[in-house]
Amino acid sequence: MSGEQLYIGVDVGGQSIKAGVVNEEGRPLSSISVPTEAWKGQEHGLRQMALAVEEAARAAGLSLDQIAAIGVATPGTMDIPRGIILDPPNLKPWKNVPVRDYIHQRFGKPTAFQNDANAAAYGEYWAGAGRGVRSLVLFTLGTGIGCGIVVDGRILEGEHSHGAEVGHIIIEMSQPRRCGCGGLGHLEAYGSATALAQRANEALARGEPSSLRTLFQTKGQLTPEDAGAIFQAADQGDELAQRLVEETAFYLAVGAVNMMHTIDPNMIVFGGGMTRAGPAFLERIRYHAQHMAFPVPATHTQIVYAQLGNEAGFIGAAGCARMLVQRPRM
Amino acid sequence: MSGEQLYIGVDVGGQSIKAGVVNEEGRPLSSISVPTEAWKGQEHGLRQMALAVEEAARAAGLSLDQIAAIGVATPGTMDIPRGIILDPPNLKPWKNVPVRDYIHQRFGKPTAFQNDANAAAYGEYWAGAGRGVRSLVLFTLGTGIGCGIVVDGRILEGEHSHGAEVGHIIIEMSQPRRCGCGGLGHLEAYGSATALAQRANEALARGEPSSLRTLFQTKGQLTPEDAGAIFQAADQGDELAQRLVEETAFYLAVGAVNMMHTIDPNMIVFGGGMTRAGPAFLERIRYHAQHMAFPVPATHTQIVYAQLGNEAGFIGAAGCARMLVQRPRM
Repeated sequence: MSGEQLYIGVDVGGQSIKAGVVNEEGRPLSSISVPTEAWKGQEHGLRQMALAVEEAARAAGLSLDQIAAIGVATPGTMDIPRGIILDPPNLKPWKNVPVRDYIHQRFGKPTAFQNDANAAAYGEYWAGAGRGVRSLVLFTLGTGIGCGIVVDGRILEGEHSHGAEVGHIIIEMSQPRRCGCGGLGHLEAYGSATALAQRANEALARGEPSSLRTLFQTKGQLTPEDAGAIFQAADQGDELAQRLVEETAFYLAVGAVNMMHTIDPNMIVFGGGMTRAGPAFLERIRYHAQHMAFPVPATHTQIVYAQLGNEAGFIGAAGCARMLVQRPRM
Repeated sequence: MSGEQLYIGVDVGGQSIKAGVVNEEGRPLSSISVPTEAWKGQEHGLRQMALAVEEAARAAGLSLDQIAAIGVATPGTMDIPRGIILDPPNLKPWKNVPVRDYIHQRFGKPTAFQNDANAAAYGEYWAGAGRGVRSLVLFTLGTGIGCGIVVDGRILEGEHSHGAEVGHIIIEMSQPRRCGCGGLGHLEAYGSATALAQRANEALARGEPSSLRTLFQTKGQLTPEDAGAIFQAADQGDELAQRLVEETAFYLAVGAVNMMHTIDPNMIVFGGGMTRAGPAFLERIRYHAQHMAFPVPATHTQIVYAQLGNEAGFIGAAGCARMLVQRPRM
């Protein structure tokens, strides 16, 4: 272990900030969480990020002297090269927050800054489902659809920090659903947990028979948190739920195929809460993707679940920190 | 000029093989064409490629000793790392043609091999519309839609030589048109000259009034070659033609937006025959793209026409040859 470099990764979310010390192999030596408390303002938020760094080191039994670099991942919108969060919908009322410079000055260490979905993709690439591949596309399925793309070990950040916003590609024109972002026909408006709940609500409001009706009547409407209940109803033979799940698998396969025909990665990875649906759901995504993709990518592109769970973000952020101090290398 | 390296680029098409000597700045010193005559078999095809190399040098008044490297671009399907055309739909009856090794052995020079749409994108990046940008996506609009992607100076080949097959991303699910490739709802089934002619035929068959009716009745149906006539009718105020052109601009904007939200390049470039429609058509693509994209890429992504015309392929192939002999560099 002598000479092994250690990194701290920080993953800022709307509710909590996750962080951990990560070693050269991408293995976390600690995993902690502190509340974001975004409503207390961005100065408080920056202090919470610093606290997360300190807690991560403490939980690993390390002093900060033993840390080579720090990586921080945050939700967008952002300017990645400048290390700034611009106007993040999930972190109101923050605006133009100089995350990288603050953490750099606070700890005096090389500090990387990255989009959280990109960081999660890098985490899976470095230390998760994608170990050993050259390129992958990660879809993180939750209330929205996050996406990160790694090609030849590099994160596809885009020229305006909008690379891999694949939840917001257009997959339907003639009868487009409205996305949470306001756009029409976006993948996220079809394949997310929010979209699944909404289609369930529409069907139940139309009077379709389903074991979900009790839940629907009790709550008034299903919400993204009920995705698990929908998958469970499908498992138990509920026909409406089965149709909704199958549609979701199809929509996600459309997203996968569009990436197979654009990025053509070794691997498409699905992470996030909806993957708790288990292997049968993944099998349906695979089925549709393989039927829609060109023969060569259909045969060769692996379609798998993520492996790092909700630690992918901070592990990937630590991986970005590692890239910073190991550059340049080929 | 002393010490300037020169390259030969070759662009193999279904009808003709274009080639030229290209200098360090991507400027062609010659531009020649020989017939492909694919039906005469692949051995003949390889000899025609070699002939194109020799003709390109001769037309520039150079001997092959003065050429540093050769690049050959061909249509797919292909295995780029192995330098082989596999089973190209436009070059029947060729199969598993070892293009790179043949040209390398024939001339004893470093030889690059690339997909023709990728090569055209690299040409525009190196010496055309994209001079000075870091990344671009090129759509080549013809009977189909070709696409090439350059990020940070590297061609996005994909892991299975299927990168940038963006003509075949799915943009419509509920009422999908069938693509020439057999797939459903692909961009190419909406935005290509073939799709434009087909929508015109459908409308004319429905009896919609239009100045295109004479042409339709004379020919039996409009074909992709009539795209120019449709654009011209639109210019002259024909309402059906105007609607068809506007739809085409919208579909191409969907393709552009999907790349702005995936690759997030500096520039989206449109090339190919349909760009003869002129600046008004480009303006309509821009209009729709800017209304559908996120604000930051909508504001910053340039949407322009290509500049190299049908020389983009061989210029880009020469650029690939240049990368070969200039590597490694950062």
